[in-house]
Order: sequence, then C-alpha cells, then structure tokens
Amino acid sequence: MNSSDLTIAIVGATGAVGRIALDLLAERDHPVEKIVAMASSRSAGKKLPYKGKELVVVEATPDAFTGADVAFISASSEVSKRLAPEAVSRGALVIDDGSAFRMEDSVPLVVPEVNGADVEWHSGIISIPNCTTTPLVMVLDALRSVAPITAVTVATYQSVTGTGAAADVELLTQSRSVLDSEDVVIEQYPYQIAFNVIPQVDNFLASGYTVEEDKMLNESRKILHEPTLRLAATCVRVPVQVSHSESVTVEFLNRVSVQEAKQAMSDADGLLLVDDPQNNVYPMPLKAAGDDEVHVGRIRDDIAHDNGLSLWLSCDNLRKGAALNALQILDEVLRRDCLKPSKKTAAI
Amino acid sequence: MNSSDLTIAIVGATGAVGRIALDLLAERDHPVEKIVAMASSRSAGKKLPYKGKELVVVEATPDAFTGADVAFISASSEVSKRLAPEAVSRGALVIDDGSAFRMEDSVPLVVPEVNGADVEWHSGIISIPNCTTTPLVMVLDALRSVAPITAVTVATYQSVTGTGAAADVELLTQSRSVLDSEDVVIEQYPYQIAFNVIPQVDNFLASGYTVEEDKMLNESRKILHEPTLRLAATCVRVPVQVSHSESVTVEFLNRVSVQEAKQAMSDADGLLLVDDPQNNVYPMPLKAAGDDEVHVGRIRDDIAHDNGLSLWLSCDNLRKGAALNALQILDEVLRRDCLKPSKKTAAI
Repeated sequence: MNSSDLTIAIVGATGAVGRIALDLLAERDHPVEKIVAMASSRSAGKKLPYKGKELVVVEATPDAFTGADVAFISASSEVSKRLAPEAVSRGALVIDDGSAFRMEDSVPLVVPEVNGADVEWHSGIISIPNCTTTPLVMVLDALRSVAPITAVTVATYQSVTGTGAAADVELLTQSRSVLDSEDVVIEQYPYQIAFNVIPQVDNFLASGYTVEEDKMLNESRKILHEPTLRLAATCVRVPVQVSHSESVTVEFLNRVSVQEAKQAMSDADGLLLVDDPQNNVYPMPLKAAGDDEVHVGRIRDDIAHDNGLSLWLSCDNLRKGAALNALQILDEVLRRDCLKPSKKTAAI
Repeated sequence: MNSSDLTIAIVGATGAVGRIALDLLAERDHPVEKIVAMASSRSAGKKLPYKGKELVVVEATPDAFTGADVAFISASSEVSKRLAPEAVSRGALVIDDGSAFRMEDSVPLVVPEVNGADVEWHSGIISIPNCTTTPLVMVLDALRSVAPITAVTVATYQSVTGTGAAADVELLTQSRSVLDSEDVVIEQYPYQIAFNVIPQVDNFLASGYTVEEDKMLNESRKILHEPTLRLAATCVRVPVQVSHSESVTVEFLNRVSVQEAKQAMSDADGLLLVDDPQNNVYPMPLKAAGDDEVHVGRIRDDIAHDNGLSLWLSCDNLRKGAALNALQILDEVLRRDCLKPSKKTAAI
C-alpha cells in the first residue's frame, strides 16, 4: 500500500498537537488520499484550514473510523482508551499520543530514530512517548553509541502547550492579569503559572516522584531496550508557550570526551548541535519552536562525576515531541510494510 | 558597640536589593542610629520612603563614607572595587553583595547559619555569596550533618531580579509586547526572556561552564570549608520576577533516608520544610517571594544513585539571597563583637 492511498483520521484535530499534525501534513505535502479531522461533539462542524481548503471537523465516534487506514489520536487517556479499540476493530492502525497504552507489552513505544524496528510487532496500536521522553532518548541513544550509560539525572523546563491549547491561553491570560494588576484566574494548574515555575507535572506517586517523572524513566527503558537504566527526573512547568528544555547529566561506564559526544550528536538523525557558547549559541525554547530537530548544546564535562557529561536540550513539544514523531512512525510503518498487525512479538 | 549607635551606608539603595535592605531595616525596626542611602550621581537627590519618612539619596563618593560604621554595597563589581577600600579606610566594615572580593583569601564569605564564625577574621570586608549559592549551602550544610556529601548536581531556575531592577522591568515590558504582538526590545540578556528560558547566567568560561556556575562551585567550597567538594551546576534564567529555584541531587557516602533528610532540614536555622506533595505543597518562587526562609521540599530518594536524594528549593533572591543575609552578617558581627578587623586569619 502506498501512502497516497491512505485515509488518516486525526482525533483531537482542534487541539494544540492536532493542529500541528495538520500543519505538518500540509508542509510535507504528504500524499495522503484523505484526512478526517475528528474532535469532541463540541467541536464538530468547526472548519480547519488545510492546504488552502477547509476540513470540516466530525465528531469522534466509533463509526467515524470506518474506512480509516490510520488513526492518530491526541486527546485524553480516556478518549484513547475508548476509541482506539474501535478504530483497530475497523481496521485502522492507531498511533496514540497519550499515555493510555504506552507501557502495555503488546504496544510498541517508538521514536523512529531510536527503535524504528519496534513498529513491526504492533497489534494495531503504536504509542508515541511523552514529549519530555522523546528528545531525551534520542540524546541518550546517540551517547550510548560511545559508551554504556550508568546513570541519568534530568531537570526539565516544560512549556504549557505540553498540557494543551487551553493551558497556553491560560498562561497568556494570567500574564496580562499580572501586568494589569488584576486577579489571576487559575484553572489548568494547581497554581498560577505566569511569572512562576511549578515543580509538579501530573500527579504525585507514593515515591515522591510525579507520574511524569515516572514516565520518563519507564518509557526511556522501554524505548532504549534497557530495562535497568537508572534515570531520575525532576519535571517542572515553566511559563513558556512551546518547547520543552532539559538539563541533563549523563554518567558513563568509561570516560567520554566532549568531542566524542559532540560527534555522536552530529552523527545522529534528528539531533541538531547548537553549541557555541562563546558566541551565546545554545538551545532555547524560542529557537527550537517550529523546528523538527532536537536542539542540543552546552555539552561539557560533568565536574561532579569522573565519567560524566552535562548538556542542555530544547525540543518543540508539539512537533518532534508529538505530531512529527507520529507522522514519522507512519513513514516507518509504510517503509517496513507493516500497516496491518503481524504475528511478531516484542524482543526486548 | 550597640547596633543602636550604628551609622549604616547602603550603596545601591535605589536598586532591587537596596530597596529590600531598607524594607528589612524598617520591618525589623533595627535600632540603627542613621541610614545613609547612596547611589550613583544619576540617582542622587531621589527620595526613598523609610518608616514613614524619607531618605534623600546621596552620591556614593569616597567621602560620603565618613562616619559610617558599616557599608552595605549592592552594585556592580566595578563600584565595589572602587568604593570598598575607600569605605574601609574611613573605618567602615564593608558587607559586599557582589563577586568582587568573594574568593579573596582575606575576605570571609558568610552565610551566618552555616559559617557565622568566619566573620571573626575579616580585614574590613565581608562578602555575601551569590544568590544561588546561599540557599544551596544552607541545604548542603544541613544534609552533611547526616552523612558526608560526595557529589552535588544542580539545575537552577533563576529570577530576573537576580540581574537587577532593570531586568525586572524588561521582563514585564517584553511580556506585554508579546501579548500585544509588538516587537520585543532586548537589552538586559542576550535573548528575549519573556516566555523563554535562557541557559546562560553571566559569561562562559573555556570549561563550558558559566561564571555563575563556577561561582556556585567555588563559593560553596569556601563557605562549607570543603575545598574538594564536587558540585556541578547548570544555571538557567527563567521569566520569574523574584525567587530563585533549584533542582538539587545530593549523593552521600552512606545511605540517607528521606526522613533523616527532612529532620535535618527541620532542625536547621533558616530552612522551611514545604513538603507535602500529595496535597500539592512544595516550594515555588511565588510562594517563597517575601519570605526570609529557604523553602525546601520534594525530598525523595534519587533513583539514579544508590546513596542519593533529590530535592527542590525556592528562595527569595533579594532577601536571604542578598539583603537579609547582609543584615544577618551584621547581627553576627555585633554578637561576636568584631566590627573592627582582628588579627585572626582564615582557618579552612
């Protein structure tokens, strides 16, 4: 089957990620036959611009998937859990942006540059990782080609569109309220995000880590096929609209030079070395927003550990962190000719 | 000498830190005899409110220090280097907020809760640490009472008032420009700070670390009297007005339980345990702003290292990070009766 014959359903088409998925399909002039834009009943009937024409949003019901070859779902976990099986039973491959299926044994969790071959054993659903995990595993995959990784310490600086379009509106609205000395309305987060940082992304577990921090560990292990990887994250929301950034310290079994690390980054698909600090060149969310690559820089010796390196990355959470990764998974699936489920099983 | 007899000169009285110093002196009803508010010639003649009256700002010239017992300098390094010796030669104890003298062997670098006794060997100048170092060493000092520290990894989230009042204005002005879709004017930082994060605080060294990150290492070693402490920092500016936050991972020689760490924090002067994640209670810049204590929370096992703990702190960079620490140093000096230089030398 050629991609030009495909019918693609996009669930959550009016959301922050869904809109970028449409932008990317248009930008790339992806030769799909048909796009079905879906959303909740509330958004049904809305029109979305696409290549100079308009797509009319339809309600995401089970029967709406009839005829779809691929369904990209970017909605709540509840929506994914309810609709993904319906799409699969109607013959569609589901590429799911949420956390609903990521850790299920029958569901590949894929970043094509890292573990593209994992798409081959899907059973109808392929998950894409959390938007903080994706750039991190791309960097870790490049680095482990130089030496085995023994420990990873991460602190994140996550933008509000990781939560969704409503959180973006809230950041802007709250910011104006602060500037105008008016009362701030809080709905999307436990506290005001404008001119603040919140060291909580998702709920807390008994361990003291958040679900988001736990995801970064478990998803990284699954994608990298390293079930004993040691990785500790602190996930923090910052008042930025688009792009997540991460301060990362990687410890290795042997010494890795800064030059070796830079070379590994340069050689890796999907990473862009943005690393000339003497000229104030380093990754930043404002620079990474709108780019497909993960920006990586500030690579330097970790002076707290003998075999460590520290670095800084920024990545557009809506593109490589979500919609772009989904489309790249589709490309990988088509290239490997495995749109339909095979009898293969995971080989971790 | 009793503090009620003191004449205190405040250099940089119209700046972000200077204003807080005046607020603190008023709040505490500090029984000083006289306050001389000093600033550059540009600000001379300005009036600053103080306890319902007004202080008239005088130009900070050498002779302006005549009669001052104490001079608190919060200005540029150049101003400190020029004026501190003049103040000392006129008999004043200089408490300096800048980096000009911090690492000089003859200058104590003091956080009273950690190394108050170091004030005793001053030669006329006592420095206060960088506003990211102060909260960190307070936490590290509490933790090393439980077990020796082997490595520290820090990522900071630093507010713009760490740069000064002009940067605060710039953040607000840029934010409004973004909201109004107008051009953003950039003067204080290399890039736009509104709705962005900048992984650069101060200039870069050849090592790939910034001066700010280097300060955190060297100042921590000096204050803690641990000249071989291993500490690696990544310093990042975030669009927050007041309070610096830090994600900190501490590795120990032996295992330290979360409970032991919490107890050590609770027992330490100047730290406030803000740590009930199940109820969304953790430190944040908006909560720490205006408070004297360093807020510490999210204390949990570091799952990447056998004997590690991770935590999160927020601290008002203008209060404990600067002006409050300066006034506490003065209190310590008076308590130890060492306003005038002694013949003691550093015992590191």
